[in-house]
Amino acid sequence: MVLYKDAGVDIDTNRRVKQKIKQLARTTFSPRVLSEIGLFGSLYQLTDYKKPVLSASCDGVGTKLLIASMMNKHNTVGEDLVNHCVNDILTLGAKPLFFLDYIAYSKLSPKIIKQVLQGLVRGCRNNNCALIGGETAQVPGIYKPGEYDLIGFIVGVVEKEKIIDSKKLIPGDILIGLPSTGLHTNGYSLARKIFFEVKKFRATDRIKGLHKNIGDELLKTHRSYYPPLYPQLGEIKALAHITGGGFYENIKRLLPKNISCVINKNSWNVPKIFQLIQEYGDIPENEMYRVFNMGIGMVVFVNNESAPKLLKKLSSSVVIGEVVKGNFGVKIR
Amino acid sequence: MVLYKDAGVDIDTNRRVKQKIKQLARTTFSPRVLSEIGLFGSLYQLTDYKKPVLSASCDGVGTKLLIASMMNKHNTVGEDLVNHCVNDILTLGAKPLFFLDYIAYSKLSPKIIKQVLQGLVRGCRNNNCALIGGETAQVPGIYKPGEYDLIGFIVGVVEKEKIIDSKKLIPGDILIGLPSTGLHTNGYSLARKIFFEVKKFRATDRIKGLHKNIGDELLKTHRSYYPPLYPQLGEIKALAHITGGGFYENIKRLLPKNISCVINKNSWNVPKIFQLIQEYGDIPENEMYRVFNMGIGMVVFVNNESAPKLLKKLSSSVVIGEVVKGNFGVKIR
Repeated sequence: MVLYKDAGVDIDTNRRVKQKIKQLARTTFSPRVLSEIGLFGSLYQLTDYKKPVLSASCDGVGTKLLIASMMNKHNTVGEDLVNHCVNDILTLGAKPLFFLDYIAYSKLSPKIIKQVLQGLVRGCRNNNCALIGGETAQVPGIYKPGEYDLIGFIVGVVEKEKIIDSKKLIPGDILIGLPSTGLHTNGYSLARKIFFEVKKFRATDRIKGLHKNIGDELLKTHRSYYPPLYPQLGEIKALAHITGGGFYENIKRLLPKNISCVINKNSWNVPKIFQLIQEYGDIPENEMYRVFNMGIGMVVFVNNESAPKLLKKLSSSVVIGEVVKGNFGVKIR
Repeated sequence: MVLYKDAGVDIDTNRRVKQKIKQLARTTFSPRVLSEIGLFGSLYQLTDYKKPVLSASCDGVGTKLLIASMMNKHNTVGEDLVNHCVNDILTLGAKPLFFLDYIAYSKLSPKIIKQVLQGLVRGCRNNNCALIGGETAQVPGIYKPGEYDLIGFIVGVVEKEKIIDSKKLIPGDILIGLPSTGLHTNGYSLARKIFFEVKKFRATDRIKGLHKNIGDELLKTHRSYYPPLYPQLGEIKALAHITGGGFYENIKRLLPKNISCVINKNSWNVPKIFQLIQEYGDIPENEMYRVFNMGIGMVVFVNNESAPKLLKKLSSSVVIGEVVKGNFGVKIR
């Protein structure tokens, strides 16, 4: 006699885990959430918009999850994910409304799932976003025992006339950089290779110049730029979230025809963690700026006149470059 | 010298793949899609609703993906996923607006990604849904080479007053079953165990009584109930999408207090594929109805008077049970 349980799917445990998730998620609800967790879908009432445009994005945490496993610390990756998604739709001018998560695993302790949820809930609360649904899926045979993937989906809203349209960038506009907390959520495959394969460090090792051990340094939470930037969106012409693809890809996709950017790499201090990766891996500088955020997690484009005001309002912000004529895309010098 | 490519992430190939995705996805766009694929997020304009309530859901294809790999046929799992998500929000009365997909892999041929996209695009077009974004993420070290996970996220909309509220079910209401095409997207871990471990079949083997080989039988596309059911929603009191958790979980979560359901299992013919799984695995009947849809993919709840009209309009529909007083949940007899 074969039961579902024998095939690696434990419906009963999964049901208990889902009860716990329900409790946690409910702490993020606002009166606009019209559904309980556990229906087939979720309901969110949209109010107070004249011409609402929905903005959506989805992302994963990538191999930062493997660092979480090395450190056995799973209560921050959820926050990384929410903040990443929030930043993505912020670049279009959108305010977060709700979030759904997907956790997939073959065999995973309910404790770890709960930790992941704690991070998701913290992230959602900090960004005023409701965690209205998601899926915790046990898929035997795809993931290694103890490993999981974590994917997030966000929906936000923006008034049609307030959509940030980077096509209005003109020569003379200024690039302001906002500091990142570390690698955020990209470049981890390369960082892991350097630290743990090439240099054979353990995650708990300390390196001179870093304030934490390597694992904790790499687990630093992806910063949300929603709290400081949302109130300033009226002054902002474009936003580039520096994630996978680094400075080149993420800025280039915003640029209108015949408009390029020059970035002065000496305008900010590259954090030690990136210096170590570059040094240990003998990585060409160009590749570093193509993979990592190098200490700048969000680039804010403003017109020349608004720059001083914004620099004052945004703590630790710094001018990192300017918009120029040309079709070369992004030059870092 | 270490490059990102050496760590298993190939930015250049990924960029080419994304170009292809962009082309395919664009064929699903309507004028309400205000963004191109490739920005940080997507934009979708909501119009013509008085009190719009958004409905969202996310899901994965689960281990049906492993059947796709066995058969080297990846152009249907995307459609499974879209249809699954469409059915989920349909149970709340919502019409699909847009869809985002997440494909994660460690090493995967661009051909397979393209096939997956073809299924997603077909699914979106059939359900009048725009594929406005997603993520194709290369995460070295999490997935086996050639394997991937595929997750989908849907947003739909429903007028507040038209939300389907199953809390109005009363004794005497009728359960109408709509046929499934096969396993849809759940129970695959158990089915794989029975066919390929217990019985040691190959996916290309044919079994008497099945019209296709085992692999193709298991790959049959999850049916979308949106085209037949959406025009009839005014007559419908509740909908249960029979997915993971089978008849028990998926119906129980709809039931108000002191309301239960009795299902007559002889009211429809259980398709051969389920009979084989049960027989080969010596699986208790109760477990079968807890894991599989047993040939009924959607249960429609209507009041007694509307039943004949609906049965006429919905092809191959059949009365499978009724709503009764009691707190036992779901009884299958």
